[in-house]
Amino acid sequence: MSENFHSIASLGGGHGLYQTLRATRLMELESITAIVTVADDGGSSGRLRKELGMIPPGDLRMALAALAHEDADGKLLSELLQHRFRGHGALAGHAVGNLIIAGLTEVLGTEQQALDTVARLTRSAGRVLPMVLEPLEIEADVAGLDDDPRIMRAVRGQVAVATTTGTVRRVRLVPEKPQANQEATQAIAEADMVTLGPGSWFSSVIPHLLVPGIVEALNTSPALKVAIINLTAEAGETAGFSTERHVHMLRQHAPSLRLDRVLVDSTVLPTIGERRYVEQAAASLGARVEYEDLRAVDENGRVTDIHDPVKLAAALQRLNAER
Amino acid sequence: MSENFHSIASLGGGHGLYQTLRATRLMELESITAIVTVADDGGSSGRLRKELGMIPPGDLRMALAALAHEDADGKLLSELLQHRFRGHGALAGHAVGNLIIAGLTEVLGTEQQALDTVARLTRSAGRVLPMVLEPLEIEADVAGLDDDPRIMRAVRGQVAVATTTGTVRRVRLVPEKPQANQEATQAIAEADMVTLGPGSWFSSVIPHLLVPGIVEALNTSPALKVAIINLTAEAGETAGFSTERHVHMLRQHAPSLRLDRVLVDSTVLPTIGERRYVEQAAASLGARVEYEDLRAVDENGRVTDIHDPVKLAAALQRLNAER
Repeated sequence: MSENFHSIASLGGGHGLYQTLRATRLMELESITAIVTVADDGGSSGRLRKELGMIPPGDLRMALAALAHEDADGKLLSELLQHRFRGHGALAGHAVGNLIIAGLTEVLGTEQQALDTVARLTRSAGRVLPMVLEPLEIEADVAGLDDDPRIMRAVRGQVAVATTTGTVRRVRLVPEKPQANQEATQAIAEADMVTLGPGSWFSSVIPHLLVPGIVEALNTSPALKVAIINLTAEAGETAGFSTERHVHMLRQHAPSLRLDRVLVDSTVLPTIGERRYVEQAAASLGARVEYEDLRAVDENGRVTDIHDPVKLAAALQRLNAER
Repeated sequence: MSENFHSIASLGGGHGLYQTLRATRLMELESITAIVTVADDGGSSGRLRKELGMIPPGDLRMALAALAHEDADGKLLSELLQHRFRGHGALAGHAVGNLIIAGLTEVLGTEQQALDTVARLTRSAGRVLPMVLEPLEIEADVAGLDDDPRIMRAVRGQVAVATTTGTVRRVRLVPEKPQANQEATQAIAEADMVTLGPGSWFSSVIPHLLVPGIVEALNTSPALKVAIINLTAEAGETAGFSTERHVHMLRQHAPSLRLDRVLVDSTVLPTIGERRYVEQAAASLGARVEYEDLRAVDENGRVTDIHDPVKLAAALQRLNAER
């Protein structure tokens, strides 16, 4: 651990945040805080949200699974949290961890107490916080759904946005401008580094920038603020998006946002021209672009579209050392 | 702990077994084994059994809750295991512990591994074993359901038997004569004391006596074998049953059964005549009747129909000391 690097707050959701948290736990920090989107409306989370009126637990559960202790019991509990019931009945598809979080929320009274209890039982490497303490919805303006490409349609719901065949132009939270979880803004204020992304750009990353308290906490925190850009465009919500457009979308949704670094995989931007575009987009956020090899290689030696936790951890440590 | 009293195996199910286990954990034994019926077909257990084809987990879960460590974490986990989802949706009424056992069973492969894992996580005072490693059904011959009281009808299913308005004459397992869980018969063979009951007589207690391997293990074990008789007849399956009839029913369902003691609450048999009947019934099993004050007193000072764990523990310790 470097002398000036003790704490990190990682903003995101889903599999992107999972990989980032796998990286943070390699960095021997004193404090890891996952700050997680709460707009999921699909699958197990969506069913629990609808049935019990709770914050959708899926992204929170996945963050807890990433941070669970790595001994035999921790690994078993992590696997249990992630396990989805088989079969074709009322439980099929529910992640066991979602049900545990839901049950603990009913027993203890708040979802945060439930999350902290799961963290304690799994001897978690960090803490997991919802970005907002109420369930939210995502609504997107989507072009290309009609014959006339100028017509924009509002698409409501995380699943609908993530799988649209149109082009997402802009996304909103419903209700708009929700109050930030105060513990989340405090973690951002106290962190040495804050990461944003990778992950589903419109449904897991940008929602954080639509919470005024989160943007304000980012802009006032002394932390090194690092946006970690996706390794590839995702089918659905960011199909065809360039790296520059990923960065541009951050600014478009939070014009006041200030960042310090934009971390880009060194293999995705082959030409100097493309690099210049992304550097201009980053500069408009006050950030410098850093290029690193970040891709995981699978067991057959093929590069993947997933961030490698070891490479990502090394990159983040270097960014801190050179700050 | 007395010099010759190290281990106990307690047979039963439901709330009766729960109270017995609360007693056993007060006795400072080295080994507590709960051996649990697997014929439940109602509520959360019945739904899981039907949906996932598993041994109904409810009675097993309740035993684990009784044996969970008593520090703050153990109490919270015990409460979580027992908590039932609220609301009116697909989860309503499911005990969280049943879902955890079901999930662990899918992850680990066997229900026993799931039960042992929950025991380890809750730092259990003992081990919980199903009496048979497959789900069973109960079928009862019930009189009094027709105008002609001589007509006997077969009533199938634990819930149907427990709530019948007729009089249960005899109960069977379906399939008949199932193979005993070998770990259960081994625990009986190695125990210093084995208890049977209290609990729902036809659906939680007598089913053990319909497993040939369990009866054989009881008859050959050097343990002191103690039947703990219910404090009252239950509406439904044992409505109007005398203490003598409870004892008689054990013999009727397992004619070869040999017991050592029949533990009866001292307040339920006021007259010498009634005591003589129950003593005759016990003698036919080779057992002596012991009378003890066993009733719990509620916070308003009223006696209840529930066994008091402290009184029951003291009675069992005295039975062992005087063996």
